[in-house]
Amino acid sequence: QMPRGNLETVHHRALVLAQLRKWLDGLRFKDAFECMRKLRINLNLIYDHHPAVFLQNVEMFLKQIDSINHINLFLTELKEEDTTKTMYPRPANTTSSSAPGKAGKVDIICDALRSTMETLNMHKYCLCILTSHVRKTTPELEICLQKVHELLVNPPSAADAVSAEEALKYLLFLVNVNELYEHSLGTYDFDLVLMVAEKSQKDPKEYLPFLNMLKTLEPNYQRYTIDKHLKRYRKALRHISKCGEEHFTELLSLVKDQRLYSDALELFPSGSQQYKSLSVGYAEHLVEQHQAEQAGLLLWRCGETVRALQAFVSCMSWRHALAVATHIPLAPEQLTQLARDLGEKLLEARRHTEAALCLELYAKDCEEAISALIEGAAWEEALRLIYLYNREDFIETNLKSAILDAHSSQMSFIESQKALLIRHKNRLAVVRELKAKASLELFDEEGPDCADSELYSEASTVSNLGSKHSQSNSRISSRSSKNRRKAEGKKYSLKEGSPFEDIALLRSLIQIITVVDKMKEEVHNLLKVLVLFLFDAQASSLQRVYSELLQLLETSIPDIWSENAQRGHNPLTGPDSTANSIMASFQQQRPTASPQDPEVLMAPKMRNTVKWRLTILK
Amino acid sequence: QMPRGNLETVHHRALVLAQLRKWLDGLRFKDAFECMRKLRINLNLIYDHHPAVFLQNVEMFLKQIDSINHINLFLTELKEEDTTKTMYPRPANTTSSSAPGKAGKVDIICDALRSTMETLNMHKYCLCILTSHVRKTTPELEICLQKVHELLVNPPSAADAVSAEEALKYLLFLVNVNELYEHSLGTYDFDLVLMVAEKSQKDPKEYLPFLNMLKTLEPNYQRYTIDKHLKRYRKALRHISKCGEEHFTELLSLVKDQRLYSDALELFPSGSQQYKSLSVGYAEHLVEQHQAEQAGLLLWRCGETVRALQAFVSCMSWRHALAVATHIPLAPEQLTQLARDLGEKLLEARRHTEAALCLELYAKDCEEAISALIEGAAWEEALRLIYLYNREDFIETNLKSAILDAHSSQMSFIESQKALLIRHKNRLAVVRELKAKASLELFDEEGPDCADSELYSEASTVSNLGSKHSQSNSRISSRSSKNRRKAEGKKYSLKEGSPFEDIALLRSLIQIITVVDKMKEEVHNLLKVLVLFLFDAQASSLQRVYSELLQLLETSIPDIWSENAQRGHNPLTGPDSTANSIMASFQQQRPTASPQDPEVLMAPKMRNTVKWRLTILK
Repeated sequence: QMPRGNLETVHHRALVLAQLRKWLDGLRFKDAFECMRKLRINLNLIYDHHPAVFLQNVEMFLKQIDSINHINLFLTELKEEDTTKTMYPRPANTTSSSAPGKAGKVDIICDALRSTMETLNMHKYCLCILTSHVRKTTPELEICLQKVHELLVNPPSAADAVSAEEALKYLLFLVNVNELYEHSLGTYDFDLVLMVAEKSQKDPKEYLPFLNMLKTLEPNYQRYTIDKHLKRYRKALRHISKCGEEHFTELLSLVKDQRLYSDALELFPSGSQQYKSLSVGYAEHLVEQHQAEQAGLLLWRCGETVRALQAFVSCMSWRHALAVATHIPLAPEQLTQLARDLGEKLLEARRHTEAALCLELYAKDCEEAISALIEGAAWEEALRLIYLYNREDFIETNLKSAILDAHSSQMSFIESQKALLIRHKNRLAVVRELKAKASLELFDEEGPDCADSELYSEASTVSNLGSKHSQSNSRISSRSSKNRRKAEGKKYSLKEGSPFEDIALLRSLIQIITVVDKMKEEVHNLLKVLVLFLFDAQASSLQRVYSELLQLLETSIPDIWSENAQRGHNPLTGPDSTANSIMASFQQQRPTASPQDPEVLMAPKMRNTVKWRLTILK
Repeated sequence: QMPRGNLETVHHRALVLAQLRKWLDGLRFKDAFECMRKLRINLNLIYDHHPAVFLQNVEMFLKQIDSINHINLFLTELKEEDTTKTMYPRPANTTSSSAPGKAGKVDIICDALRSTMETLNMHKYCLCILTSHVRKTTPELEICLQKVHELLVNPPSAADAVSAEEALKYLLFLVNVNELYEHSLGTYDFDLVLMVAEKSQKDPKEYLPFLNMLKTLEPNYQRYTIDKHLKRYRKALRHISKCGEEHFTELLSLVKDQRLYSDALELFPSGSQQYKSLSVGYAEHLVEQHQAEQAGLLLWRCGETVRALQAFVSCMSWRHALAVATHIPLAPEQLTQLARDLGEKLLEARRHTEAALCLELYAKDCEEAISALIEGAAWEEALRLIYLYNREDFIETNLKSAILDAHSSQMSFIESQKALLIRHKNRLAVVRELKAKASLELFDEEGPDCADSELYSEASTVSNLGSKHSQSNSRISSRSSKNRRKAEGKKYSLKEGSPFEDIALLRSLIQIITVVDKMKEEVHNLLKVLVLFLFDAQASSLQRVYSELLQLLETSIPDIWSENAQRGHNPLTGPDSTANSIMASFQQQRPTASPQDPEVLMAPKMRNTVKWRLTILK
C-alpha cells in the first residue's frame, strides 16, 4: 500500500521511518509493529531493516508481539522484495547489510519463526506454525495436514491448545479446499481425507465411492492409484513396481505414457525380464527420437542382441554393429551381407576408410575395399591393401588415373579460391572506403551537437546510412532468435550495395581461409603419392600453386584485418578532432558488425605447424 | 651532385628546373641536355619528367644528342630513383605520370635505347650498345663479349665502325678485367678468352696452361670443367651428364656437394641405373635432414625397396612400411617382427588405433591389439576386436577396470579444470579493477594537456604503470623475433602482480576452454561404454559434472570477454567527458594486450554442434 500522494504524508513518512529505524535498532519490535500497522507501513521492513539482527532475535520478536493474529499478519505480508531497496530506501549515509544465505527471504523467515515457535510453545503457536508452512515458496500442505491429523488423534491437553477442527478451519481459510483435498489424498491417510472432505462443501456422493474403491485395493496398488490420480507419476511408478508381475503391463504403459524409462530401469535388477522389457520399450522410444545408438546400447546390455544390431545398423554405428554381429554370432554369409550393407552406407556418407575396413575384413572383398579407399583419396591405405593382397594391377587400372584426377581437381579448386579471394578482397576495400566517406560526411553534417545516444549505438552509423534498412532491422529484432538467425543469413548479402556487404565479404573471406587451410593434409598426401608414381611435374605444379595461394592469404590477412585498414586514413586525434570525430574513428575501426557476429572482427588463424610441403619438389 | 648551398643557387635552380621542364615538354632534348650538363642537374630527370613521352621519342632523343660520349654519359648516370620524387619535386599543381611496366627503370631505358640504336646504326652506336648491356641490372657481359668477337671475326666495312680492339678496350674501361675474363670463359670460346686475356694485364703463364688443358678435353667435359671453375654448378651438371657413365662418379660427387639432386634426377630416365644411384644419394641426404618419408618415396619408386622400408620405419610411416614389406615380400616371421616393432613405436607415440591395426593384421596378435585399444581408450574398436576374436574374457580382465579408471581420471580432470577456471576468472576481475583504477588516476593526474602521442600508444597506460618494466620492454624489442616470442612467454606471467597478469590469465582461460571443449568426443565415448556395461551411476555423474563445467564456461565467457566487463563502469560520454576520458575508456575496453596477441581479445568458440550428451542419462 503506497502512502497517499500529498506532501504532508510524504514528509510524515520520512519522520516515521526514522523513528521506526531507531526502534528496530533498539529491538523495540512491539512499538515498531504497532506503529507500522497503524500507518500502513509494509511489515517486511522489520526484517529488511537488518536481516541478521532480526534472525538473532526471533524469540524476542515473538514475545514482544505476543499475538497469534499479529504473527499471522506478519507472516502473510512477507514477500521476497527488499523494501529497503524499493519502498523505503535507507538514508544515504548508512550501509546496507545484505541478507544472509542463498534460500529465499520468505523461506528463511518462515523456518526461523517456526523453529522458535515450536520450541517456545507448539500448541499456543499452532496456527502460526501452520501459516509458516503454507507461506513457504512451495507450500508444505501435507505437513500441515499431518499436524491437523495429529491433533485429531491425540488432542492436546494444554489449555491454550487449538483443536483439530479449529486448525483445519484455519487451513481451509488459507488454502483452496480442492488443493487441500488433493494433498490429503496424497498422504494416503483416509482419516485425513475424510476430515478434509467433510469440512469442505464437497458432495459425499462424489468422493465416497472413490475412497471406498481405494480402500479395497492392495496397499501398494492403492497408493499407485492415488498417485496416478494426483498425476504424481514417479511415485505411482515406484508403488506399482512393488505390485508384482501381474501389474507389469500396467507399469509398462505408465512408463511409456509418461516416458519414465530411466526411473523404471532403476527399479528392477538388470538381469530381470522386466528390465529387458523396459529396455526394449525404451529402445523403441529412442529410435523414434533418432537416438538409435543409445537404443542399441540398452538392447545389447540386456541381451537383446538382434534388436541391438538393427539399432546400430540404422545409425551407422558400424563398429558396434559388427561387434554385436560376431557376438550373436551371425552366419558367415549374413555377416558378409551386413558388412556390404554397412560399407555401402558408409560410402554414401563419404566415410571411405571405415567403409573399406568393413569391406576388407568382414565382407572379405579386397577389391571393393581398395576401390573405396581410392575413391576417398586415402592413397596410403589403398597402397597398403594393394600390396597386402598382391593386387598391383589396381595401380595401373584405377590408382594412377584417380591420382591425376585428384590433381587436376585440386588445381582448379585452388584457382577458384584464389579468384574468389582476390575479388572479395578488392570489393571489401571499395566498400570500406565508401562507408568511411559516408560516415565522415554524416558526422560533418550532424556537427558536435548530436545526441550522445547516437554515439553510443554501434549500429547507428550504418542504420543512418540506409534509412530504408533500419526499418526492416527493427522488424527483425522483434522476432524469435531462431528466426533472427535465419534473417541474418539473408541480411549479410554479398550483393553489391547491400547494407551489410562488408560483413558478408568478411564471412566469405573467413570461409575461404578456413577451407584452404584445411586442405593442407590432403594436398600433402596427394603430393606424396604423385611423387611415388613419378608424376613430379604435376606434384611441383600443385605445390607451387597451393604455396602461392597460402602466401597470398598470409599477406591478405593483415590487409583485411589490420586496425589500420579498418581505421581508414583519417587521423584519430589532433587539434581539429572533437569527441565526436574520435568516436567516429573508433567506430570505423570495426566493420559495421552487430555484437552478434564478433567473429568477423578477427582474422582466422592458419595452422602454420602443419608441414605439408615436400622438400624434394622445386 | 647537390647544388651549392647558397640562396642564390637554390633560387637559380628553381628557375632552371622550370625552363628544363618546358624544354622537355617541347621535346627539346638537346637544349635540356646541354643545360643539365653545365649546371650539374641529374640527367635522370630527362626520363623521369615524363617517362612515357621519353620512351615514345627515343629516336628523336638520340638524334638530337648525336654524340656517343653524351649518350654513354646519360646511360652511365641512370639510376632506379625517380628524381621527380627526390631531388627535383614537381611543382604542386602538376600531376605525376607514373612509369610504365614492372621492369626496373634502368632496364627499360637501356633496352629502349639499344633497340633504337641497333635500328639506326649498329656500327656507329657500337659503344653505346655495349654500355646499354653493361648497365642492365644483371650486366649482360657475355653478349658484349660476343659482339666484340663478331667485330673481330667480321670487321665491319662501314666508315664510322668501331674496331674490335677499340670495343674491347672500352669494355675493359667499364668492367673489371677479371670479371670479364671469367665471363669470356663462360662463352666456351677460346678465341674470345685469349682476346680478353691478352688485353688484360694477366700473365700468360697463369692462364695459358689452363686454357691448353681445357682444349684437350672432350667438348662436354670441357664445358663441365669451365662451369665448375666458374661455380656455375647447374650448368656443370648438365654438361657432365652428357659425358657418359665413366664420369658418373664425378657427377654424383658434384650433386652431393652442391645438393643438386632434383636437377640431376631430371637428367636421367627414371628406369636407369644412374637415376637409382642418384635417388639413393638423395635419400641418404633426406634422411639426414629428417625427411625420411620423402626419402622412402624416392627409394620405393626406383625399386630400392629394402632401403625404402628402412626409411619408412624410421619415420613411423607405417602404412608405407607395411606396403613395401609385402611388396618385397618379407618372410612371414620378418613381417611379424616388423609389425611388432611398428606397433611398439606407435604405442610410444600414443597412436593406439594404428598400433592395434599393425598388431592385429600383420603381427596376428589380437591380444596385444586389444590391449593397445583399451590403453588408448578406443572402446568401440576394442569391443569390435574382442567379439571378432571371441575373446570376451578381456571384458572382465581388462576392459571394465580400464573404463572405470578412465571415468575417475576424467572426473578429477574436470574438477581440476573447474577449480582453475574459477580461480583465474576471479583473479582476472580483481586485476581488471586494479588496472581500471590505476588508469583513471593516471588520466586525472596528467590532465587534458598530455601529449597526443601518449594517447595513440596502446601500451602507454601500462608502461606508465610500471616504469621498471617499460625499460625491460625496450630491451626485448631489440632482440630477434624468436627470442622475443620466448621472452613474451615469460613476460605473460601468472604470478600475482606481474605487469601482464591479465593477459596471462586470459591465455590460461582460453586454454581451459579449448581443452574442455575438445573433451566432448572422449566423454561421449566413455559415457556410451559406461552405459553398455551398466555403470549408469558413473555415467550419470560424469555427464552431470561435465555438463556443469560446460555450463559454467558458457556463462563465464560473456563475463570475461564482454565489452561491458572490459569497459568498466565509468561512463563513456556525457557532459563531463573530454577527448581524453573517451580515449581512456576505449583503451580500457581492451586488456593491455600488445598487437602481437590479439587472440586474447576474443572469446574462444565452443563447438555447440557436438552432441556428446546421452539422453538416457539423467
